[in-house]
Amino acid sequence: MNSEENFVIAIHGGAQNKDRNTFTPEMEEAYKKGIEEALLTGWEVLNDDGPALDAVEAAVRVLEDNPLFNAGRGSAINCEKDTEQDAAIMDGKTLKAGSVAAIRFVKNPVSLARKVMETTEHVMLTGPGAEEFARRSGLELRPSEYFITQEKLEEFKNTLNHEKHTAGKGTVGAVALDKKGDLAAATSTGGLTNKLKGRVGDSPIIGAGTYANNEACAVSCTGDGEFIIRGVFAHLVYALIKFKNMSLHEALREVFRINGEGLKTEMGIIAVDRKADAELFYNTLPMYRGYRRNQEPAFLAIWEDEFRIE
Amino acid sequence: MNSEENFVIAIHGGAQNKDRNTFTPEMEEAYKKGIEEALLTGWEVLNDDGPALDAVEAAVRVLEDNPLFNAGRGSAINCEKDTEQDAAIMDGKTLKAGSVAAIRFVKNPVSLARKVMETTEHVMLTGPGAEEFARRSGLELRPSEYFITQEKLEEFKNTLNHEKHTAGKGTVGAVALDKKGDLAAATSTGGLTNKLKGRVGDSPIIGAGTYANNEACAVSCTGDGEFIIRGVFAHLVYALIKFKNMSLHEALREVFRINGEGLKTEMGIIAVDRKADAELFYNTLPMYRGYRRNQEPAFLAIWEDEFRIE
Repeated sequence: MNSEENFVIAIHGGAQNKDRNTFTPEMEEAYKKGIEEALLTGWEVLNDDGPALDAVEAAVRVLEDNPLFNAGRGSAINCEKDTEQDAAIMDGKTLKAGSVAAIRFVKNPVSLARKVMETTEHVMLTGPGAEEFARRSGLELRPSEYFITQEKLEEFKNTLNHEKHTAGKGTVGAVALDKKGDLAAATSTGGLTNKLKGRVGDSPIIGAGTYANNEACAVSCTGDGEFIIRGVFAHLVYALIKFKNMSLHEALREVFRINGEGLKTEMGIIAVDRKADAELFYNTLPMYRGYRRNQEPAFLAIWEDEFRIE
Repeated sequence: MNSEENFVIAIHGGAQNKDRNTFTPEMEEAYKKGIEEALLTGWEVLNDDGPALDAVEAAVRVLEDNPLFNAGRGSAINCEKDTEQDAAIMDGKTLKAGSVAAIRFVKNPVSLARKVMETTEHVMLTGPGAEEFARRSGLELRPSEYFITQEKLEEFKNTLNHEKHTAGKGTVGAVALDKKGDLAAATSTGGLTNKLKGRVGDSPIIGAGTYANNEACAVSCTGDGEFIIRGVFAHLVYALIKFKNMSLHEALREVFRINGEGLKTEMGIIAVDRKADAELFYNTLPMYRGYRRNQEPAFLAIWEDEFRIE
C-alpha cells in the first residue's frame, strides 16, 4: 500500500539520433503536443484513482494513434513496404503480462496485448494467430494503409539508399505507479525501418523492453531492440535494485554504463518505482519524454532543454 | 580462458508431471537412448575441441529429430491440429543470440535460430516471415505431417477432454562450456498441447527460457512457458550469480524458492558455469536430463534414480 497516495506516470515516444536542425518549429510543436496529450491522458487515469495498468494502456494508445510516433499508425516500414507491430503490457502486482508481435491490422496493439493477458492462458501471441485472436476478441481493426505514413515511407527510402537496416528507430512506452502502490509498464512499436518480415524487437519481450514488478520498478525501453534483448535490460534494472539495493537512479545509470562498455547501443529507458521516483535516461537525442507526479507540473522534453506545463 | 581445459555439457528433454506407472520398460529405454545420444553428440563436439555453440546446437538437433521429445518432430499439437515450433540459441562470449517462434516446416528450428543470429541484423524472427527466411537460407524443410506423431495426437485428445490448455509440456535444451572457456545455451520446443496459433513460450525468449553470458552461466529452462517468461528465470539465474555472488547451485535453488513462493510453476532448469559445474534442477518428474564433464562417466536420469554410462 502506498500510504501517502503518491502517484506518477512517465512516458516516452522513442529515442533516436537526429539533427535538431532538421526539425521545423512546427514539427517540434506537433511532437510536444503529442507527448503532452499522452502524458496527461495517463495522468488523468491515476488522478481519478484508476489503476496503473489502465494509465499505461491509455497513454500508449494515444501515442499509437498519433502518426508522428513509431507505433500503431505511423509504424516503421518493413522490407515488404508494409508495417508490423509489437507491444507488451505487464502488471507489477500480479506479474501477469501480455504481449503481441509481428501483427498487422490492429489499431491499438497495446490493447491486444492486454487482451492476451486477461483472456488467455498465454503471455505472447504472434503473427496471423494473434490477428485471428484480435478479430475474435472484437478489437478495432484497420487496413494496412492506415498504418503507413508519408514520413515513414521517406525514411524507408533513405534507409534503402544507405543499405542499412537499422535506421528509423523509435518506440513508445509508459510506466506508472497508482495511488494503491501498484506498478505497470507498457511498450508499443513499429520496429525498425526495412526490418525483415516477422522480426520481433525488444518491446514485446518481457524482461527486455518491458517489465514491471511491485518489488522494485516498472520499466520501458527504446532503442536498438536487438541489443536490448541481448542485454535483457528491463529485467537488469529490476535485478540491480532487488539484488544490489540500488536506487532507481543508480540502477539506470549502471545499465547505461554496462551498455556503454559492451553492447553499446543508442537507447532510452524510463522507469518509476513505488516511492514515486521517475527516471528518464537516454544516450541519444531526440528522446521524446515526460513525467508527472501527483499535482506537480508535468515535465516534458525532446532535447536537453525541458519544458514544463502547469 | 579456461586454463585447465575443463569442458562440460548438460541437456534436458523436458520436465513434466507424469506417473511412472504409465511408462513401459520399453518406453523408458527409448527415452534413455534418446537423451544419451543427444548428450554424447554434444560431448563429442567439445571433446574434439569444438565450440560450445556447436555442441549445444548438435545436441538439440538430435532431440528435435527424435519424435519422443516435444521439439521439431514430435511437437505438441496446437488448437488447429497442427504444430508450431520455437527455438533460441545464445553465445555467452559475444552475447549474440538468435531466436525463432511460431514457425512451421523447419526440420531443425535451433539451426534456423542460429542462422538468424549469424546472417541477419535481427535476434528474433517469427511466423511466415521466419519460414520465408528459412527457405531463402536453404534450411531443411519438412511438410506439416512430419512433425505430428500419434503419441502427441493422443495427448491433444486427452487435453480436449480435460478442457485444459496446459497439458503436454516438455521442451529440449542444452548448455555447454567448451575448452576455451566459452559458454552457450540452446532451447527448442513444440510448446503446449492445444496452444493457440501464434503462441510463443519461454524457449525463444532471451532471458526467459534461454540465456548465456561468459560472465556467469549458460541456462536452459523447461516447464510452463508463461510462468518462466513472467519470472525471466534464465536471466534471474545470471543476476543472482552476478549481483549476489551466488554459486550456480545456490542461484538455481533460489530461483526455485522464488518460484515456489510466487509463480508456482512446474519446471526444470539446467545450467553450467565456467568452472565446469553443471546443475540440473526440477520440481516435477519425469525430467529427462543428463550431463557429462571431461572424460568422466555421463550422468543420465529420468526419475530420481540416475543411471551412468562409461
